[in-house]
Amino acid sequence: MQTQELATLVNGNLKGDGDIEITKVASIEKAQTGEIAFAEKEFQSTNASCVIVPENFYQTLVCPTISVKNPKLAFAKIAQILHPPKKRASIIHPSAVISESAKLGKNLFIGAFCCVGDNSEIGDGSQFRAGAKIGDNVKIGKNCVLHPNVFVEDNCTIGDNVILHSGVVIGADGFGYVRDGANGYLKFPQIGTVVIENDVEIGANSCIDRGALGETRIGEGTKIDNLVQIAHNVQVGKRVVIAAQTGISGSTILEDDCIIGGQVGMGDHARVLTGAIIGSQAGILPGKIVRAGVWWGTPVQPLDEYKRQNAMVKGLGRLKEEVKELKKQLSEKK
Amino acid sequence: MQTQELATLVNGNLKGDGDIEITKVASIEKAQTGEIAFAEKEFQSTNASCVIVPENFYQTLVCPTISVKNPKLAFAKIAQILHPPKKRASIIHPSAVISESAKLGKNLFIGAFCCVGDNSEIGDGSQFRAGAKIGDNVKIGKNCVLHPNVFVEDNCTIGDNVILHSGVVIGADGFGYVRDGANGYLKFPQIGTVVIENDVEIGANSCIDRGALGETRIGEGTKIDNLVQIAHNVQVGKRVVIAAQTGISGSTILEDDCIIGGQVGMGDHARVLTGAIIGSQAGILPGKIVRAGVWWGTPVQPLDEYKRQNAMVKGLGRLKEEVKELKKQLSEKK
Amino acid sequence: MQTQELATLVNGNLKGDGDIEITKVASIEKAQTGEIAFAEKEFQSTNASCVIVPENFYQTLVCPTISVKNPKLAFAKIAQILHPPKKRASIIHPSAVISESAKLGKNLFIGAFCCVGDNSEIGDGSQFRAGAKIGDNVKIGKNCVLHPNVFVEDNCTIGDNVILHSGVVIGADGFGYVRDGANGYLKFPQIGTVVIENDVEIGANSCIDRGALGETRIGEGTKIDNLVQIAHNVQVGKRVVIAAQTGISGSTILEDDCIIGGQVGMGDHARVLTGAIIGSQAGILPGKIVRAGVWWGTPVQPLDEYKRQNAMVKGLGRLKEEVKELKKQLSEKK
Repeated sequence: MQTQELATLVNGNLKGDGDIEITKVASIEKAQTGEIAFAEKEFQSTNASCVIVPENFYQTLVCPTISVKNPKLAFAKIAQILHPPKKRASIIHPSAVISESAKLGKNLFIGAFCCVGDNSEIGDGSQFRAGAKIGDNVKIGKNCVLHPNVFVEDNCTIGDNVILHSGVVIGADGFGYVRDGANGYLKFPQIGTVVIENDVEIGANSCIDRGALGETRIGEGTKIDNLVQIAHNVQVGKRVVIAAQTGISGSTILEDDCIIGGQVGMGDHARVLTGAIIGSQAGILPGKIVRAGVWWGTPVQPLDEYKRQNAMVKGLGRLKEEVKELKKQLSEKK
Repeated sequence: MQTQELATLVNGNLKGDGDIEITKVASIEKAQTGEIAFAEKEFQSTNASCVIVPENFYQTLVCPTISVKNPKLAFAKIAQILHPPKKRASIIHPSAVISESAKLGKNLFIGAFCCVGDNSEIGDGSQFRAGAKIGDNVKIGKNCVLHPNVFVEDNCTIGDNVILHSGVVIGADGFGYVRDGANGYLKFPQIGTVVIENDVEIGANSCIDRGALGETRIGEGTKIDNLVQIAHNVQVGKRVVIAAQTGISGSTILEDDCIIGGQVGMGDHARVLTGAIIGSQAGILPGKIVRAGVWWGTPVQPLDEYKRQNAMVKGLGRLKEEVKELKKQLSEKK
Repeated sequence: MQTQELATLVNGNLKGDGDIEITKVASIEKAQTGEIAFAEKEFQSTNASCVIVPENFYQTLVCPTISVKNPKLAFAKIAQILHPPKKRASIIHPSAVISESAKLGKNLFIGAFCCVGDNSEIGDGSQFRAGAKIGDNVKIGKNCVLHPNVFVEDNCTIGDNVILHSGVVIGADGFGYVRDGANGYLKFPQIGTVVIENDVEIGANSCIDRGALGETRIGEGTKIDNLVQIAHNVQVGKRVVIAAQTGISGSTILEDDCIIGGQVGMGDHARVLTGAIIGSQAGILPGKIVRAGVWWGTPVQPLDEYKRQNAMVKGLGRLKEEVKELKKQLSEKK
């Protein structure tokens, strides 16, 4: 595409040649001829053929620039055009094992060693890469991508445009038992389901357990990183971001638009309200309600308090010295 | 089943109609006609056709009740009858690759794309779902379920009624190396095994490494959640519960009936004694012995101490003010 | 092999019979006739037929000994000879799906249900165990082992002698999005690659994400444990050790010869310098530079400081008492 077309695409203001051919996106440091990059602040130099810059950018460049409010967003939009996700041919590999009762949409890619169980449905344009498997009575929406070795258990529902990365497990039994004295543990029923709404992306080897009796739900547009654990009956709202290795215990609710760092742990029946940002490695106690704002530490506190407290702990040596000095002065007075 | 039959099944005391037909379990809020629920305390209302209640329950209900000592346990028992685990047909899918030297029990389900290695044995009634694989010289007991894409490595032994959820890896090499100066790391031998006793359940994508020289062992009736890491030579006792994302380092011992929260980290050669309860995100140092009781924090302390210390840290601001005030008073005295 | 041969192999000093036949390695406690063990300090007794001991070992043994500087290292070297990794036959299983454009080296083992994508290359002597899959344009070096169900995504490069344990995912998309107001999140391009250098070993179910624009790199001789998360554009140096369940955020750099404990979390754009040792469960803030030495806690501090501070917190009760006493004394003076 040409620089003018790209500028139009992102509602940007082009400065310089409008007919430079752009074929790829790249970082500002590595970009070469034919590539477009973005900058959020001044930079040393670039070989890019075009740079997306903020509206009030003052640095003079030799190459054409496209100025926009949010250069990173414009760059991501352009990248989606120049580097569309791989489109696989509409084929069903002869090795795939597909139940006769499954309802298959149009233009599907179903790769080698895939399985589709009884009465399951797959929407138009979805892709099952090698070894992806779904159980019985599963619904997969349109234009989903199940990467290699994904497994979706019986009775789960996946919306449209959902991406499940390699090794994701949706709908395994939740972790619930009842102690039966000396006999050990009896399994509490794990007979609910998982519902994943449209436009969700879930990272490699993450696990979303099925509800015990009800459902576990991941809201529209939510993005989940690798190796995340979501327990039974958790309700994750829309447009929530959850970074890697975070674990969320049973029945906890994350409202829309929360941001959760990596390695966070949440106890059961907690509630994280809209607008809350939870720092990495934080711990939220069972039943806790976490309001909007930035939270940190275990158990979580508002970031300001956490910092103040941390500073206070770091100042403990001095405080101790002061008390020692006071004792000395006081004893000298006697 | 009818309400009277269910009451008898759980040794409960039926109040009301004994011939109401019950087909499903459900939560007290969602239950409908034909469904049974349980309550541990007073609740607003329910549409359930029968409710399991504690023995001294005073609330008057329109539907029949079954009173028992432990309603949740009775509910779980009834759920096992009304919702038995899916029984798959006794078939071996033609795509499965099974060594000629393997010894197969009766009534097996072996799904598509499964592998069974040389000299491996599978007990009667076990199920290998699609893509489950075992290496050579593996022993799988009776009535086990290997969910999709499970892998059990050579020479490991699995007891009866064991459930391995999707993506579980049993018997991968432990993480042990010896530094050889500038040459980097040489692998320490990881040639031991894993033994998993009867009635163990292991959650999705969890890993149990093989012993370096000896064995890693998971005791009878132990339940392990998703994404848990158990290192080489760890000995987990009987009826232990380990929540998601916990990691246990090499040669650590968990005695019978411990309860371990989520995201706990344990150093190597530690020992957690019977009756210990370890709070989520706790950290246990290498070699530490943790006695019965509730433990919290990193490094772990008894919960009471942890709380006292936490309160003290939170009171640091006031303490600092007091010291400031003392200094002022003292200087005024001069 | 005979004791004299083994002594020569490890440049050790044999004391006792040189023609005892040794067939296995074992621990000092469990070793039997025909087995060799090692000891780093005095021990009670052993049935081993030979023991590797430190140079200045004074305990008198009935069996032959081999004295060396580093007994554990010598033991590991001997174990490699006596217990070589399983060598699988040079066969390509008929069920494997291999692109016609793939370039296959010699003496390959490619097991059941493996996939090799277009234009991918596999070096001589590499083994793909059942269900291992690689995408298009992937390069796998010589003598690699991909354990069952491993997946390596398009365009990634793996060196020689690399071991990827079961369930490893190499090259899944990194976790990067740009917020587009009420529309939610737009995917930032994740079109880079992963390069894994020679002699790397990666544990079961670990994930190494592809670079967003550039590459994610794991340096030669680095060893990574199970369930580890390495984000986009991370640069891990040579001979780095990373224990289980650690997570490293985007663009962070680990220099050569670092040692990272388990469950450590690192923010993005941090840098861990050569010689740094990071204790388990530590947290490194984004952008932080961590110098050589031992580090602990969240946020990380030098171990000495961490200990001092911990002791100070534990002494808070006494400090509080002292302040109370001072107040009392001062008020009495009035």
